[in-house]
Amino acid sequence: MSTAIMLIHCPDETGIILSVTDFISKNGGNIVDLDQHVDSERKIFFMRVEWTLDDFSIPRDKIGDHFDPLVANEYQMQYKIHFRDEKIRMALMVSKMDHCFNDILSRYRSGEWNVEIPLIISNHPDMEETAKRFDIPYHYMPMSKETKAEQEKKQLQLMLDHNIEFVVLSRYMQILSENFIEHYPNRIINIHHSFLPAFPGAKPYHSAHERGVKIIGATSHYVTAELDAGPIIEQNVAHVSHKDSVEDLVRKGRDIEKVVLSRAIWHHTNRCILSYANRTVIFE
Amino acid sequence: MSTAIMLIHCPDETGIILSVTDFISKNGGNIVDLDQHVDSERKIFFMRVEWTLDDFSIPRDKIGDHFDPLVANEYQMQYKIHFRDEKIRMALMVSKMDHCFNDILSRYRSGEWNVEIPLIISNHPDMEETAKRFDIPYHYMPMSKETKAEQEKKQLQLMLDHNIEFVVLSRYMQILSENFIEHYPNRIINIHHSFLPAFPGAKPYHSAHERGVKIIGATSHYVTAELDAGPIIEQNVAHVSHKDSVEDLVRKGRDIEKVVLSRAIWHHTNRCILSYANRTVIFE
Amino acid sequence: MSTAIMLIHCPDETGIILSVTDFISKNGGNIVDLDQHVDSERKIFFMRVEWTLDDFSIPRDKIGDHFDPLVANEYQMQYKIHFRDEKIRMALMVSKMDHCFNDILSRYRSGEWNVEIPLIISNHPDMEETAKRFDIPYHYMPMSKETKAEQEKKQLQLMLDHNIEFVVLSRYMQILSENFIEHYPNRIINIHHSFLPAFPGAKPYHSAHERGVKIIGATSHYVTAELDAGPIIEQNVAHVSHKDSVEDLVRKGRDIEKVVLSRAIWHHTNRCILSYANRTVIFE
Amino acid sequence: MSTAIMLIHCPDETGIILSVTDFISKNGGNIVDLDQHVDSERKIFFMRVEWTLDDFSIPRDKIGDHFDPLVANEYQMQYKIHFRDEKIRMALMVSKMDHCFNDILSRYRSGEWNVEIPLIISNHPDMEETAKRFDIPYHYMPMSKETKAEQEKKQLQLMLDHNIEFVVLSRYMQILSENFIEHYPNRIINIHHSFLPAFPGAKPYHSAHERGVKIIGATSHYVTAELDAGPIIEQNVAHVSHKDSVEDLVRKGRDIEKVVLSRAIWHHTNRCILSYANRTVIFE
Repeated sequence: MSTAIMLIHCPDETGIILSVTDFISKNGGNIVDLDQHVDSERKIFFMRVEWTLDDFSIPRDKIGDHFDPLVANEYQMQYKIHFRDEKIRMALMVSKMDHCFNDILSRYRSGEWNVEIPLIISNHPDMEETAKRFDIPYHYMPMSKETKAEQEKKQLQLMLDHNIEFVVLSRYMQILSENFIEHYPNRIINIHHSFLPAFPGAKPYHSAHERGVKIIGATSHYVTAELDAGPIIEQNVAHVSHKDSVEDLVRKGRDIEKVVLSRAIWHHTNRCILSYANRTVIFE
Repeated sequence: MSTAIMLIHCPDETGIILSVTDFISKNGGNIVDLDQHVDSERKIFFMRVEWTLDDFSIPRDKIGDHFDPLVANEYQMQYKIHFRDEKIRMALMVSKMDHCFNDILSRYRSGEWNVEIPLIISNHPDMEETAKRFDIPYHYMPMSKETKAEQEKKQLQLMLDHNIEFVVLSRYMQILSENFIEHYPNRIINIHHSFLPAFPGAKPYHSAHERGVKIIGATSHYVTAELDAGPIIEQNVAHVSHKDSVEDLVRKGRDIEKVVLSRAIWHHTNRCILSYANRTVIFE
Repeated sequence: MSTAIMLIHCPDETGIILSVTDFISKNGGNIVDLDQHVDSERKIFFMRVEWTLDDFSIPRDKIGDHFDPLVANEYQMQYKIHFRDEKIRMALMVSKMDHCFNDILSRYRSGEWNVEIPLIISNHPDMEETAKRFDIPYHYMPMSKETKAEQEKKQLQLMLDHNIEFVVLSRYMQILSENFIEHYPNRIINIHHSFLPAFPGAKPYHSAHERGVKIIGATSHYVTAELDAGPIIEQNVAHVSHKDSVEDLVRKGRDIEKVVLSRAIWHHTNRCILSYANRTVIFE
Repeated sequence: MSTAIMLIHCPDETGIILSVTDFISKNGGNIVDLDQHVDSERKIFFMRVEWTLDDFSIPRDKIGDHFDPLVANEYQMQYKIHFRDEKIRMALMVSKMDHCFNDILSRYRSGEWNVEIPLIISNHPDMEETAKRFDIPYHYMPMSKETKAEQEKKQLQLMLDHNIEFVVLSRYMQILSENFIEHYPNRIINIHHSFLPAFPGAKPYHSAHERGVKIIGATSHYVTAELDAGPIIEQNVAHVSHKDSVEDLVRKGRDIEKVVLSRAIWHHTNRCILSYANRTVIFE
């Protein structure tokens, strides 16, 4: 049994839920999940609705054609439709640090996520052997100031060729250009090794140690043009003490990073995230 | 602007959300919040919906009369309707320990909850002075094996007289009779000072210390006939170590107990809780 | 049975622990707790040692006279000696928000800490009634730009008169002058309602909501001349979601603030804290 | 620079710390870490002390010979000496579930722990391929009621042959015999997928779901003859809700299990753990 998932946002008005549920029911869909949220300050309505496709009378590629005139246009909706049984194509970018990378590949092989990873890109050769073991093509693409524009162009072409839906930066130590980011708005997930907005930029564990914090954290977020400032998806923390050296923070932090990044992938691939105003609505 | 809140559960079927939202919209209500859940194992549907009453055409006391034939009967719904602007009448029962008691009264006075506390009942005289400071009538009702039945009868009468909707046991060290509990099904909230189902019964911090656990917890739950086994509302924990004596566990535990109990009151008074099969659905 | 607690820091060298334990043992003290820490980067040694006074041959007020020539001078030690059975005199400063204030007074009355509170100072009259109930003199001292210097002078005199050892700012909404702070170095504890260094300054919950964080926090720290930048004592956090309005963050934050501030008081009054290089060593 | 670590416990008495530090100092050792704890109820003293070996005048294998007559015998000490620069030999036992297994091998390869893994034992063939990739010999030893005694004998021989110091059960789904356990007292680490003592035995996530808990957990502990009742090393938890199916609990639980097991290995291999009275003292 497959399902469709629709993510909607629009100006808040009376009757939206009724219109959407009416549309689904009248066409033979059975709603299996519905969650909504209103940003009452900004007067924006958000909704995630999932329904069965077995007896749904509209073919997948025609749902929009019917939904637009009957519902979406009236409420000035922006929406996306996804289907549970379609694997989501994910590109993985990595540099030298392998803890998130190994964790992602282990989860991938165990089938934790509904994804296909046809592509690993790295600015270093170090992870190639691991990629091979998982039978995933590894593209070693070194970056320098001079080659960056050219290399990014190739990377984008590769992603296009492989029909990539979203990109995961697994401690990828290169800043993506605005041009690159614009090709994947709210579809590039980064893990930052601090509790943002504390300690953006480089060496956050050093800064945390220097400041003497009693808690460290990690943050997964969508990448935007402004560094470490995109919509936050997930955060978690761990208690530390004066006994912890920078190396201890790095070690303890790795465990948080792995979980926080993997949860972001979980939310993204379950189509639970709506982004707006540099924030996320996450329908768990 | 006031709102109505409806809590519904019924066998899972197609079309329930549509029917309910249709009923509300057709009668002029604007849905401000809707959350639903399906227990797919037991095939039960749960829903919480909140709508504005300003332009709602049905008077409060007639909503059921209209809802039953049009919606509820068709789906064999069990439901309750609440109104945001009606203060909820709460009775507080306490023995000698005052940390939750003081915390509840502080929150009460600061207006954190939509409640009225017309009644404090205790089997000890110790808290009377504090009750006086908050101008809440304090009923000292000592309990012994012999007087229990009689005293409980008086307590129930007091609650009836004061139109009590729900009862909070703030470390009340008496086991309520089945008869008492039956008068307030899913309306008596207890705080147990352990992470249930670990360490039910008396002296859980002693047991936790003896077992050498590295985490302690507290659990708020609705009271049922079986001791410490009712539907769990909220749980939280704190890390402890070998350095912590039983007294340390008691001290650290108090901080958890206060928060866990107050959150249960928050959920209950916001009409977020549906209970079934000895579990809770909490629509946050 | 009373004990002495010595907090020591000095340049790291061989033989310090031996020298200190030798001093205590030779004079008849039995060590009941010893914890030490070396900042290996800065080469600083920290130690907290607690011993029984029953058979200790040196009178309390002469310990330093013996310790200096025999031990302290050799290692260039800075140290302080405290005695468990001496109540610590604490001043409480508060403005209008009462959640930490009520929580502190409840804990005070229940005897959780080894403190005496002879003095409450406020720039508003609001908390006077509560202070009365706890029989603590309340000094209403309104502050304006013009009167600040004068009022602080009076406050310092009051503290001197009452032999105050440390000050707790319970959401006291006035910035203390450098002069004031210098009178109580590492002896003024503040609660800041964010996970510092994120969101220093005013309205951190608003900033957190605006940024869309998924976790909020609170930080207790010693006050230094730079606002919200002093040595951190304790931090804690709570998970939040897109559903939480600023008001929800404020409400959830209150629960964290209370615990984080009270734990700082616990650590301070148990003589567990050493401060250096704008950080704290906390011997739990 | 290498160090020695001594773990001591004995009846609590005056002068122990002094005696030990004196012994180390007099022989040229510089103490780099010292932590102690007194179980005041049972009157037992615990200590972990680490010192440099550079100028230490006693050879490694003679330390005991000197320590016994000078210190240990006087205080009836039980103690163990370890050396930082000696790799600890660890055997890994696994069945079919691979999340902890993969996580352990990734950490192993990254050098997170001071261990050598010369040996993987499994009652299933499934993990052999992974073991090969890490170049670790994999012993497939199927178990049945009839063969259990014989197979365990072979396993013990294998461990003896490989000079194994401790064993990690990475979701190994076989109950070890008392005889097996006695060969490795407090040296077999198991991960149990619940917050013990809640939900011991099989299928704890199912039981947790059935009970409707709001928090799930995992526990690493030393294995003793009584199932799931050995000394607890580390515990951690995650919040869950009514939305989580058993499968969700299993998925969320995996993340906790990985961290809780790896931290137990960290503590064990850093020689931070003392066990007594079915509890652990963990000097972090």
